[in-house]
Amino acid sequence: MAEFKIPGITVYRLALYARTLEKLLEEGRDLISSEELARECGVNSAQLRKDLSYFGQFGVRGVGYSIPGLLKHIRRILGTEREWFMVLMGAGHLGQALLNYEFLPKRGFKFVAAFDVDEEKIGRVINDVYIYHVNQLSWVLREHPAEIGVIATPASAAQEVADLLIENKIKGILNFAPVRIKHPPNVVVENSDLTILFDKLAFYLKRLD
Amino acid sequence: MAEFKIPGITVYRLALYARTLEKLLEEGRDLISSEELARECGVNSAQLRKDLSYFGQFGVRGVGYSIPGLLKHIRRILGTEREWFMVLMGAGHLGQALLNYEFLPKRGFKFVAAFDVDEEKIGRVINDVYIYHVNQLSWVLREHPAEIGVIATPASAAQEVADLLIENKIKGILNFAPVRIKHPPNVVVENSDLTILFDKLAFYLKRLD
Repeated sequence: MAEFKIPGITVYRLALYARTLEKLLEEGRDLISSEELARECGVNSAQLRKDLSYFGQFGVRGVGYSIPGLLKHIRRILGTEREWFMVLMGAGHLGQALLNYEFLPKRGFKFVAAFDVDEEKIGRVINDVYIYHVNQLSWVLREHPAEIGVIATPASAAQEVADLLIENKIKGILNFAPVRIKHPPNVVVENSDLTILFDKLAFYLKRLD
Repeated sequence: MAEFKIPGITVYRLALYARTLEKLLEEGRDLISSEELARECGVNSAQLRKDLSYFGQFGVRGVGYSIPGLLKHIRRILGTEREWFMVLMGAGHLGQALLNYEFLPKRGFKFVAAFDVDEEKIGRVINDVYIYHVNQLSWVLREHPAEIGVIATPASAAQEVADLLIENKIKGILNFAPVRIKHPPNVVVENSDLTILFDKLAFYLKRLD
């Protein structure tokens, strides 16, 4: 389907619009012009209108967008109007930080189980999520179905863990390990690269004085 | 200066181009057309050329870009051709994951010290970085100057810690706490929002079948 071709950076902007609309809604706002919304998001308004026009027609000329209406619509486009169930692979520092990251369940992303190979971690419960041995993955997924696997293992284990997720019919992988994951075309992999944030900071910092 | 107005999303793309060029360089590539580079980055080639034209003229018509040349240039634009020294505020799970994140020092972002209030953590050394009590910040910064403060505390402590960094002349803050930081205009704050990654994954996953 044509929508599948939409580049990652457009989807990134949609997610950014959703975050900004959520913030405006919390501030009690109801309506916004495309110019103001674009400014709040740090994009130009032609870009904003173009992004939204991919997915249909919104907004009323001269009035602007209904904030709750547009947010609801963007969430439907993103697929975040529903809940997604996830398994966490690797309960080290990053994994535990993710289990405790309150924004995820708030936005519908819920861990049903965590997995590790460290006997000291197995059996512990973090933020209501039980840590199993990685060997128990198939069994746990039968009891607690999930669609997303989050990889927070060391780089050396990431491919093996990804293969295991794929064998177990997980179709979406979010990879925090600093390594590229090989995967069949019917599996979606998003790679997290935290260093991009540091680059952005350096850019603005360099221009500060 | 005019460059300072450049929107965050353009800088994000520059960082993305840098990552892609690094990958191509590792693969032994030397030259690339703007079309191929754009495709590798998931943007359109008009966008790529426009982004780069902000900062001068590169590439040779009909030949394309020199990968090492363009990478060097983008690093200079981003300010990542040099080293940046950082302090970490909060040595919990996320903080410790950042101390162990090998890509940061590799790209010139180096922690000189970490700070916490938990007596059990103070005095420990993680990946060669010593954990001090937060009260020792001024003293440590005199010994080990730093320009960037990374906040990895709970949301409830983030503003207080940011104020402390700002008092101590830190001009760049990367905030991983899920809360907005108030700051004077001569301080740059970048907020990390990990949920955007999960949104992107949901978008593609929804369209998979």
